[in-house]
Amino acid sequence: MTLTLIALDRPTPDFAAVFTKNAFPGAPVIVGRNRLAAPALGAILVNNKISNVCAPGGVETAERICGELARQLGLGAAEVLPSSTGVIGWSLPADAMLAALPQAVSSLAAGSVLPAAEGIVTTDLYPKIRSASVGGGRIVGIAKGAGMIEPNMATMLVYLLTDLVVPRATLRTILTRVVDATFNCISIDSDTSTSDTVVALSSGRVPCADLAAFEAALATVCRDLAEDVVRNGEGVRHVMRVQVTQAPSAALARTLGKAIVNAPLFKCAVAGNDPNVGRLVQAIGKHVGAHQPGLDLSQLRASIGGIEIFARGAFQLDPAKENALVAHLKGAELYASAAPKDGVYAPAVDFPPHERCVEIEVALGTGRESATVFGADLTHEYVSENADYRS
Amino acid sequence: MTLTLIALDRPTPDFAAVFTKNAFPGAPVIVGRNRLAAPALGAILVNNKISNVCAPGGVETAERICGELARQLGLGAAEVLPSSTGVIGWSLPADAMLAALPQAVSSLAAGSVLPAAEGIVTTDLYPKIRSASVGGGRIVGIAKGAGMIEPNMATMLVYLLTDLVVPRATLRTILTRVVDATFNCISIDSDTSTSDTVVALSSGRVPCADLAAFEAALATVCRDLAEDVVRNGEGVRHVMRVQVTQAPSAALARTLGKAIVNAPLFKCAVAGNDPNVGRLVQAIGKHVGAHQPGLDLSQLRASIGGIEIFARGAFQLDPAKENALVAHLKGAELYASAAPKDGVYAPAVDFPPHERCVEIEVALGTGRESATVFGADLTHEYVSENADYRS
Repeated sequence: MTLTLIALDRPTPDFAAVFTKNAFPGAPVIVGRNRLAAPALGAILVNNKISNVCAPGGVETAERICGELARQLGLGAAEVLPSSTGVIGWSLPADAMLAALPQAVSSLAAGSVLPAAEGIVTTDLYPKIRSASVGGGRIVGIAKGAGMIEPNMATMLVYLLTDLVVPRATLRTILTRVVDATFNCISIDSDTSTSDTVVALSSGRVPCADLAAFEAALATVCRDLAEDVVRNGEGVRHVMRVQVTQAPSAALARTLGKAIVNAPLFKCAVAGNDPNVGRLVQAIGKHVGAHQPGLDLSQLRASIGGIEIFARGAFQLDPAKENALVAHLKGAELYASAAPKDGVYAPAVDFPPHERCVEIEVALGTGRESATVFGADLTHEYVSENADYRS
Repeated sequence: MTLTLIALDRPTPDFAAVFTKNAFPGAPVIVGRNRLAAPALGAILVNNKISNVCAPGGVETAERICGELARQLGLGAAEVLPSSTGVIGWSLPADAMLAALPQAVSSLAAGSVLPAAEGIVTTDLYPKIRSASVGGGRIVGIAKGAGMIEPNMATMLVYLLTDLVVPRATLRTILTRVVDATFNCISIDSDTSTSDTVVALSSGRVPCADLAAFEAALATVCRDLAEDVVRNGEGVRHVMRVQVTQAPSAALARTLGKAIVNAPLFKCAVAGNDPNVGRLVQAIGKHVGAHQPGLDLSQLRASIGGIEIFARGAFQLDPAKENALVAHLKGAELYASAAPKDGVYAPAVDFPPHERCVEIEVALGTGRESATVFGADLTHEYVSENADYRS
């Protein structure tokens, strides 16, 4: 287990957090929701390996560790936010964690978030850090997450830090909007973690003259981190960017995008660089048939990699297009699958060689709303990681 | 491609059919819906390999082939029902199929549905036939389906034949009810085919004194076929039977059961004989959090293989239980995974050695409704079959 401590020079009243909507939230999420009413936040303690979800006495254990850390940092007990990720159901090793706190405190260092980004990972292949400069200040964010990722209101452990003055209420409004448009638009495996957490902290050192510019910069950081989370998803070898346009509602645009990136047969086809457009149309038809039956789809147009594959109620394909589609899929592949060792497939690289996506566009032709959703393929590496590894 | 012809001795007015709710139905489904208004049905022509979905002129091609077959059988054109399964988007080879019709007609044989059950398969490992005797008559059913299986109102190509007199309107009412409780309660991969079709034909030879007994027998045949479809699902090595009880609504019971059997991380854990109960609780919490937030889950109890794993808001686990859970999972395994050849995993057997399931019970403690849902694990065999094979 790695303990990661994020501590501010002084506690800030200007913090915001959103948490999972899973009906079995982890103990740190329960504690974190209470912290939203606290006057200020001064530190975040993150552990991996064990997520402290539905374990007997989990909330009490989290509070006990936060209290002791607060004492060592000179903070109030409610000024420490706990965060945990890892196996669901196990209990935290409280005594060992308490014994390790002095080391965590003495290791605090300014200058780089890289150690924190490295400390919070589990099955992640590499640390995820994104930043933006705006109005003389900075926004820096780190994220953890590779599986059990279809966030509903938040995603697995994201910490956003800024020196810009953004008052608490404003920060919370902005964070909710930004998370909804970024982390809530990705899915690796359609599973929603019990620990999803996004926290934003403002140290309030740099005046913020333009809140709209701040929100745009925060959205950029969050969108880039969200893409990083997908790109680093368990077993992911292709990232899909699905743009649904001309939809009758924003909700349908987003849920249809999610339905496409969560359709197992289409995900497998993408993994195999197989432009199986039939499975794409199946996924669209399944979702519309189940959730908006009767919607006129006669004007629907779909393309992959900019190549039109469906229009006027029928596929628009020929051998040249098929070859171009295969080339597009291969061009978006992050790495080729390596032969398994002892029956286990392992990812071949530890950092993505490019940021190209499989580009899918679906224009419904029935409205003006749109959404962009990110997802991933379904690979042997995903099965190897999750059929044997307990996380 | 295999052509399979099911022909009655004489056309019957007493037939029923339900079709996919996918918003992009195949041409045979479009034709089939029109057939429901026809006075009688005399034959069904099934082809595999190409499903005739959204292919230009698909309906016209299906009607042309039906018309020629009707002529050869001495039927009206509207008395032949077309059915197709296979690749979505390709066009049927109409000329080759027309040329093969005389051979199909001359091969008609009484006595066994086995050739028909064998003829309609694609990636199925074995033919699926179930039958029941009731009131001096018989019900025989055959099914095809192994992937793209989460039926919504019907499932992939099921044909039910009976000699009992069941009038058309009654047969349609009964079939809808039975399909809803059987085929609509399974999911292999959450994908809903564009070709799902269930057809029931009554030859009307044996008087049916007890329609309730007929419905019960039809339900047994359909439930057994539905289980067969799951057991034979692409790459399936464990079948899961999820019983959700004490639910506030039948809809929540069923959709929660579906959410459990469709949760990729839990499916992978089952594939690995890993009793990862955290992923089960994640799946429950995700679904309730998204669809019925605020529902009181404090009384929820969950068990696997009859072993209680969750109650009173916390996991109820110890090492002895963990061992028993592993033993239950291994006992339900249909076959062990064999090492891949040239990177491709292939199923090891062609017929299931037993019919045991991973038994999952979730008692919500908030009502009186219940549902039983069948699903399957997620394996390397599934990925191998679908990342490379175009279906």
